[in-house]
Amino acid sequence: MAYEYKTTRLVEFADTDMAGILHFSNFFRYMEATEHEFFRSLGLSVHSDSPDGTWGAARVQAECDYSAPLRYEDVVELHLLVRNKGQRSISYEVVFRKMVDTAPGPEVARGKMTVVFLGKPGADGELVSIPIPAAVDALLEIAPE
Amino acid sequence: MAYEYKTTRLVEFADTDMAGILHFSNFFRYMEATEHEFFRSLGLSVHSDSPDGTWGAARVQAECDYSAPLRYEDVVELHLLVRNKGQRSISYEVVFRKMVDTAPGPEVARGKMTVVFLGKPGADGELVSIPIPAAVDALLEIAPE
Amino acid sequence: MAYEYKTTRLVEFADTDMAGILHFSNFFRYMEATEHEFFRSLGLSVHSDSPDGTWGAARVQAECDYSAPLRYEDVVELHLLVRNKGQRSISYEVVFRKMVDTAPGPEVARGKMTVVFLGKPGADGELVSIPIPAAVDALLEIAPE
Amino acid sequence: MAYEYKTTRLVEFADTDMAGILHFSNFFRYMEATEHEFFRSLGLSVHSDSPDGTWGAARVQAECDYSAPLRYEDVVELHLLVRNKGQRSISYEVVFRKMVDTAPGPEVARGKMTVVFLGKPGADGELVSIPIPAAVDALLEIAPE
Repeated sequence: MAYEYKTTRLVEFADTDMAGILHFSNFFRYMEATEHEFFRSLGLSVHSDSPDGTWGAARVQAECDYSAPLRYEDVVELHLLVRNKGQRSISYEVVFRKMVDTAPGPEVARGKMTVVFLGKPGADGELVSIPIPAAVDALLEIAPE
Repeated sequence: MAYEYKTTRLVEFADTDMAGILHFSNFFRYMEATEHEFFRSLGLSVHSDSPDGTWGAARVQAECDYSAPLRYEDVVELHLLVRNKGQRSISYEVVFRKMVDTAPGPEVARGKMTVVFLGKPGADGELVSIPIPAAVDALLEIAPE
Repeated sequence: MAYEYKTTRLVEFADTDMAGILHFSNFFRYMEATEHEFFRSLGLSVHSDSPDGTWGAARVQAECDYSAPLRYEDVVELHLLVRNKGQRSISYEVVFRKMVDTAPGPEVARGKMTVVFLGKPGADGELVSIPIPAAVDALLEIAPE
Repeated sequence: MAYEYKTTRLVEFADTDMAGILHFSNFFRYMEATEHEFFRSLGLSVHSDSPDGTWGAARVQAECDYSAPLRYEDVVELHLLVRNKGQRSISYEVVFRKMVDTAPGPEVARGKMTVVFLGKPGADGELVSIPIPAAVDALLEIAPE
């Protein structure tokens, strides 16, 4: 069972804005990419055709608190933690720490996301919420406090 | 004094993702664009050189709850409300309603952003938080409940 | 028959980069959005299920020459012209002119895109190139020199 | 002297569009990121304050030919080559090959970018084109055919 994942990424030029910093919306992209990397590390992919009929995942809530900016070529550590696991949803927290040399330094942001799972679209093209897929349920657990 | 602003925008192809819907991070871009349009409607621009030394604005918190997807070519109404005004920060709420024909239909998302203002960078290049610029303070007020 | 389309749009904050200008990749997004707006103006949408089996469009070539930057809150006119129409592809040119007051001013960029059309995915999920849909072919023509 | 650089990257969910593929504009972001990674590999950064007054770089031309799509979680090799070096500009070619297992497979796209260098903004805030910075000129050469 896994409840956390760490990765780093470098702030690319195209992700900055005219204030010279990582645009606030891109913290959400980084969070989602970390979640997906976490899934891949477990041999999972939520966006594929699986035998249990899962089609994908969708965010129902996302938030981020920003305490310091990130700039071009900064390297940031993303530390994802599973904060809740319900019947149909998983909640993550992601702590952003700016790397100083090769170690994580001060926290610069902290975000949360709640994700639900969607079944294959029906004849009407509508996606419906489904329980957490068994393969995901078997591998993820809530992080200890 | 102004406490709200409404605009509409069409979901562009490049804003969608492989799930066929507006990517969740783009709701934040739409929110920010609405805030800026609100400012322009008042003759303000927070990202410019102003006599009082304002340099820009920065988000310290952002969040969004998603209740229904938006798809390519959907038109969405963004209804921004000033929810709080402190010494140094302003908080907005933005209600997303999908347009049905030419009238706002069901709410599809609801977001919040808290913004602080930054003074001109000093010799060290660091931006510092400043009180709400006088021109902004004079024009914005908290929305009635 | 139509061979050109003009629209304007305002450069949003999130579209800028740390150089303080519209990121070069976003000119391509603006071009595509103009093409789609052109299609809508003709009652067409290339990304939908249509009776003739069209599924979507895809770019096979795109380019842009940049002669001057665009900045936050600049308004740009996008002038799209149909430059070629083959059996399976359409080529567009898009001229970017920065608006000065309410009139188009100097050209700041000039781009091209060549688009092909794709049929509904087969059982293997692969998209295949198809001839220009009849509805599109009936409405678009090459712009005079 | 260096004339080429290779890197790989994984296609992230947020970079896809509703057609289920990497949005065509993101190939340009990937190209730029590769150029910047190439520079870092040489100990260079074009977006910084340097003793010779360089402020940044700007694209004057960019283009891409697309031959096959890239999808979510595909890994793509980006092979950048220096194709021309003038007094004031450098032209790159970038070949995109989809990784099959751990080796580069078929070419899926091929792009070009021409970059000029900009000096520190003057009192009027305008950026001016400058010769290739000495540090860059000393390290980059044109790739052999």
